[in-house]
Amino acid sequence: MLRSLLFALLTVSAVAAEKSPVDWIDPQIDTKEPRFFFFSSACRPFGMVNLSPDTKTDHTWKSGYRYYDEKIQCFSHIHGWQIAGLPVMPVAESSNHKDYASKFSHDGEIVKAGYHKIHLDDHGVTAELTSTTRVGFHRYTYQKDEAAHLILDLGRKLMDHEMIDPVAELREDKMAIEGSTTMGPSGRRKKEFTVYYVAEFDHPAEAVGDWKNGKVVVDFGKLGKPLQMKVGLSYTSLEGARRNLAAELPHWDFEKVVQDSYDQWNDWLGRIEVEGGTDAQKTKFYTDLWHAHLGRRIISDVDKSYPDNTGPETVVRKGKRHHYNFDALWGAQWSLNVLWPMAWPELMDDFADTMINMYQNGGMIPRGPSGGNYTFVMIGDPATSFFSAAYHKGIRNWDKQIAFDGLMRNAFPGGIRDHAGYETQKYSNGGGMSYYVNRGYVPLGIPKSQGGHRQGAAQTLEYSYQDWCLAQLARSLDYNEEAELLEKRATNYKNLWDPSIGWMRPRNLDGSWYKNFKPINEQGGFTSPGFVESASAIYTFYIPHDLKGLADLFGSADAMADRLNSNFEKAAPVRFIAEHGNHAISWVDYQNQPSTGLAHVFSHIGKPWLSQYWVREVLDKTFSDITPDGGYNGDEDQGQMGALSALMAIGLFDMTGGAAQNPNFDILAPVFDKVTIKLNPDYHDGGEFTITTKNQSPQNRYIQSAKLNGKSWDSFLLPHSEFEKGGTLELVLGPEPNKAWGTKELPEPRRNGR
Amino acid sequence: MLRSLLFALLTVSAVAAEKSPVDWIDPQIDTKEPRFFFFSSACRPFGMVNLSPDTKTDHTWKSGYRYYDEKIQCFSHIHGWQIAGLPVMPVAESSNHKDYASKFSHDGEIVKAGYHKIHLDDHGVTAELTSTTRVGFHRYTYQKDEAAHLILDLGRKLMDHEMIDPVAELREDKMAIEGSTTMGPSGRRKKEFTVYYVAEFDHPAEAVGDWKNGKVVVDFGKLGKPLQMKVGLSYTSLEGARRNLAAELPHWDFEKVVQDSYDQWNDWLGRIEVEGGTDAQKTKFYTDLWHAHLGRRIISDVDKSYPDNTGPETVVRKGKRHHYNFDALWGAQWSLNVLWPMAWPELMDDFADTMINMYQNGGMIPRGPSGGNYTFVMIGDPATSFFSAAYHKGIRNWDKQIAFDGLMRNAFPGGIRDHAGYETQKYSNGGGMSYYVNRGYVPLGIPKSQGGHRQGAAQTLEYSYQDWCLAQLARSLDYNEEAELLEKRATNYKNLWDPSIGWMRPRNLDGSWYKNFKPINEQGGFTSPGFVESASAIYTFYIPHDLKGLADLFGSADAMADRLNSNFEKAAPVRFIAEHGNHAISWVDYQNQPSTGLAHVFSHIGKPWLSQYWVREVLDKTFSDITPDGGYNGDEDQGQMGALSALMAIGLFDMTGGAAQNPNFDILAPVFDKVTIKLNPDYHDGGEFTITTKNQSPQNRYIQSAKLNGKSWDSFLLPHSEFEKGGTLELVLGPEPNKAWGTKELPEPRRNGR
Repeated sequence: MLRSLLFALLTVSAVAAEKSPVDWIDPQIDTKEPRFFFFSSACRPFGMVNLSPDTKTDHTWKSGYRYYDEKIQCFSHIHGWQIAGLPVMPVAESSNHKDYASKFSHDGEIVKAGYHKIHLDDHGVTAELTSTTRVGFHRYTYQKDEAAHLILDLGRKLMDHEMIDPVAELREDKMAIEGSTTMGPSGRRKKEFTVYYVAEFDHPAEAVGDWKNGKVVVDFGKLGKPLQMKVGLSYTSLEGARRNLAAELPHWDFEKVVQDSYDQWNDWLGRIEVEGGTDAQKTKFYTDLWHAHLGRRIISDVDKSYPDNTGPETVVRKGKRHHYNFDALWGAQWSLNVLWPMAWPELMDDFADTMINMYQNGGMIPRGPSGGNYTFVMIGDPATSFFSAAYHKGIRNWDKQIAFDGLMRNAFPGGIRDHAGYETQKYSNGGGMSYYVNRGYVPLGIPKSQGGHRQGAAQTLEYSYQDWCLAQLARSLDYNEEAELLEKRATNYKNLWDPSIGWMRPRNLDGSWYKNFKPINEQGGFTSPGFVESASAIYTFYIPHDLKGLADLFGSADAMADRLNSNFEKAAPVRFIAEHGNHAISWVDYQNQPSTGLAHVFSHIGKPWLSQYWVREVLDKTFSDITPDGGYNGDEDQGQMGALSALMAIGLFDMTGGAAQNPNFDILAPVFDKVTIKLNPDYHDGGEFTITTKNQSPQNRYIQSAKLNGKSWDSFLLPHSEFEKGGTLELVLGPEPNKAWGTKELPEPRRNGR
Repeated sequence: MLRSLLFALLTVSAVAAEKSPVDWIDPQIDTKEPRFFFFSSACRPFGMVNLSPDTKTDHTWKSGYRYYDEKIQCFSHIHGWQIAGLPVMPVAESSNHKDYASKFSHDGEIVKAGYHKIHLDDHGVTAELTSTTRVGFHRYTYQKDEAAHLILDLGRKLMDHEMIDPVAELREDKMAIEGSTTMGPSGRRKKEFTVYYVAEFDHPAEAVGDWKNGKVVVDFGKLGKPLQMKVGLSYTSLEGARRNLAAELPHWDFEKVVQDSYDQWNDWLGRIEVEGGTDAQKTKFYTDLWHAHLGRRIISDVDKSYPDNTGPETVVRKGKRHHYNFDALWGAQWSLNVLWPMAWPELMDDFADTMINMYQNGGMIPRGPSGGNYTFVMIGDPATSFFSAAYHKGIRNWDKQIAFDGLMRNAFPGGIRDHAGYETQKYSNGGGMSYYVNRGYVPLGIPKSQGGHRQGAAQTLEYSYQDWCLAQLARSLDYNEEAELLEKRATNYKNLWDPSIGWMRPRNLDGSWYKNFKPINEQGGFTSPGFVESASAIYTFYIPHDLKGLADLFGSADAMADRLNSNFEKAAPVRFIAEHGNHAISWVDYQNQPSTGLAHVFSHIGKPWLSQYWVREVLDKTFSDITPDGGYNGDEDQGQMGALSALMAIGLFDMTGGAAQNPNFDILAPVFDKVTIKLNPDYHDGGEFTITTKNQSPQNRYIQSAKLNGKSWDSFLLPHSEFEKGGTLELVLGPEPNKAWGTKELPEPRRNGR
């Protein structure tokens, strides 16, 4: 008893002396040319508000906060998937109010998870920003002799949409401006979307200027102390914005909110603790983890009301949980779907609730919902993997029947799979589902189809995996005819294997092979015909559910491993990435989703040491940069690349995306001495799962031997059923592969076994 | 010139001397034991209001206005598919207000389309009823020395649902009571449904009694003249009810409304004029035609607002056209889908708009929408035939892409076909679509499935026809892969043909044949296993799209015709009908939809004279009664039996339900000397299509020869492309078959030929 108390005290003090998880986060990593929604500072996990300075506002790509830009354009509150809004700017009376952008420097700038401090040189204003989930909190310190002015610029174009119908009214007590602003339609988000706001001040406005092109200047006079402003948002109503503000931020204590935000992030990210490794690795790891909980944004109010825009008119509905706006889960089987269930299972329930509600509202489980409606981004139905993973990891606070109904409907003509990237037709067959059902593959060149990414080979391969995911769920729910039907379709990938060349090859409309085939498109470009932002060199291995079946097509596991190894060797000189827009020339491309399981493939065909080698190569060469110039290679994709990089760093993965009836993790070597994963007790009773390493070093990436809970463990797979019970995995590492380790087969899991 | 003018004058005067179409209507036909929604008197075409006396109110079946009952229970305003409501009763001050039912007799009762006059013996009140589309108009003449009282009984149970949440408020001027009443959920309509009303009087209320169990008595005092009341309804809001009332009935001229109603029905039904035949035949024909435009009820306001209840909350939306509440279109390919497009094509557009709106609101094109939501009545997706018929007859004021999208989604797992009769689960596979897709048939005994009518053989056969219908639409819309897929499935009926017995036979879950098979179930009962309210004897011929293919299965057209002929001979002694609830014992059953194409089958396998014989037998024996004791054999099914009987009487039909790319009518002998069909010039330019007969008589049911527009016509098929141009079909009839007539093949129509 005494001894354990002593141990506990020691542990606490040891932890206290170290930096907390949140202290490692560096929001400026890879901010050279990010996407508009990439950067966050004043933001809570999945915050409706992510308030931050924008240095460029007029594009989806290479926009937002960019490290090397010289001017701040404004501070805006929303940076999400096809949504943006509410730009403000503190200026001095003497400033240029027309072009109000201001020079700034990184000297004195403080950028943290939950806090941003920056000096606007042209206006002599020091701005500090923090936030709750739905409220942005501003503190502006003006120069002493200047009257404090504030520009509210509701007419400013943001990303790729116009802001229309600006409404701003000064409250009677002059302590707030309330109103709304509407995001005009964009190419991807086809309907308008309105955000309501209440901007409350801690000083009364002395004067409000004329309304010009959606812009208004508020004059607070000379204050002698900082001006504070709280901006509450809502997508349902002005009343909702007032309620959100009142519920989340009823006081004016700026420091307290900064501290609360710090604590919340620390609690949130502290569910995985790492020891050992370099400072750079910890910086990257926690920044990765942080990104995995950003980007996708809550759009529901504190009372869970959210806007449903799937019908002809906006309807405010209420969910059971948070409702989210997010880019497609395309490829998330190798990132978020593996990471979130480990320690944040409640997120799976949240996103399930969002998707099920959208199914009930609009008839389809969505792929990338924005503005309360569908955006039809990318291809396929990645929700199959998501729901199957949630179910099979015991995360089930959602209606299985409704979800299964929606996923089944998506798997046939007219469902979400049939709506290829950004299509606009009402009946779309850009997803080629009639072809897929009728022939077992999607050809190139479907007549009358619409939408982007109409690449039949990639669609066939992804559908094939998604059919397997859904079949797993069907088996577990005891829908066995459905499972049988989907299991047959899960082998459809074989219809694209051309044995004469040994690659997955597109088929033409008449069934013949696509003629000008090359494994990569040496001319470069966005995509190689038949493949989505990628090429056959990569998609040939996109059979996560049946890699042994693929090895049979290759003739042997050796032949397949040689081919993939050769891909990696060809891609190594360019750090395993292609420039976005030039994916077609890559043999391996960790800048984009289709490649993100590649390095882990080897384990599944009897060669775990090759996965151990290439995973570490990719982590080191592709994801280790912690400067503004790299780290995610320009497109972090709303947490996907962060999650992947974090998984590589802790040495866990799941090739099948957790969708199997009895899911397993892939085991690899972590870059840390110890990784502690705290299970969420609402879902899994196991307490903690710990991975320890012996001989961890940059050279020692190979697993020599392993013990699970003290007993020798010779499979590269770790059953989730073991993980969720808590326990310890001990790995002994070394500089040379132990080719015998990891190849032992797991006993066949029971069917419907959970 | 002079001669043709003279002819025109003669024609006009001849017509003027005759009864108008509406004069032939007899609403009391088959009112012995009808369904609650069968009877109409004060009602416009598809009227939201169908105000009439109820003699029995507490059941869906054998309820409503029943001719032989002795008491009127109330006058209620709504009699629809799973909807009922707003009962009122005029009583004298001295009447029993608790049990306010009143004796009545048919002496002095006047019952017409648009007008009902009846004397309530117990209250000494003569009640007269008429209506506009959305307003019921009452005129009550009380005894001189009695104070006029009116009971508004919002708490009365109607059909199979409770009435809940009654609201009634006396308007300040005492000239109206306004409020709402909510139909509680029923087994088929699972959500509550509210109707708003304004009951306006032409005398102020002197006193309003206490509210007791949803019932209130209004006292108007002694009036000395009739009390008039106008009751406007709406399903969207009280304001909607006020608007409907103001728009449709801004005056108090009762006689004018009776006349307007008469004129509207006359215009409506006068689109088909008949000459010759007996008075009884004309009475039946126009009553049939009238029923075909009743039962299915408008639920949208004058401004086209309607309630959408497909989501968690009611949303008021606006359509482009009238929005309807209706029982399934199950079997309508042989009745409404043939009749409506002939002369009322705007109805096809209306119902298409309703179904497309529901698809956009709730994700499924409905089968039997009620209360703004799905009811999942019966099986399959009869809308396939409906939309394909509308399209191929040039009725296209609806969005083809959305409709096709919805119909395709319905044709796969999770769509409407998968929701078998009245199912309640969220994921239903009672429709067996996964089995159908996976195996090509639906077996008996699907585990975990729910809903009624889960009869795999019937489902397989109906799906097979529906696939063909949708394939026709797909070809015309140039969705050729979809068409190919569906055309393959359209042959699925063959999977149920058991050559060892020569019947369509159910399969078990393991693929084996159902053991205790008999073509009819001699024990009787609602259904024979595998079939829906029917038996194999009937469903074996349910291949309207490929009767020649069926003949091949039989071995020859002769063998098939012999079998069917034998069915008819067996069924003749029971007038080709089964008592509802005993369908399983029938060889032919014109009391229910699955049989309603049977007599017409012979024409399609080279024996038109047999169809001419049996169609006339069925018309005479099954549908010719014009007394309260028969005519529709107890279930007219919201216009379906009326439409079928009317088609038989004018000698037109369409075995494929008009769904073919180039649809044809089947030609048979009319019971009239002349039939004039007035085409709607908004859709078809042809003016009129006329059928004349020579030697028409009860004995002369056989076509001897025919001329189309003066030229010899030797096919039993009349292309719609000829019909829509207008013209004349001359038929020479005789007492013996001319077996040579009608068997000439039409030239192969061009594909996508319209």
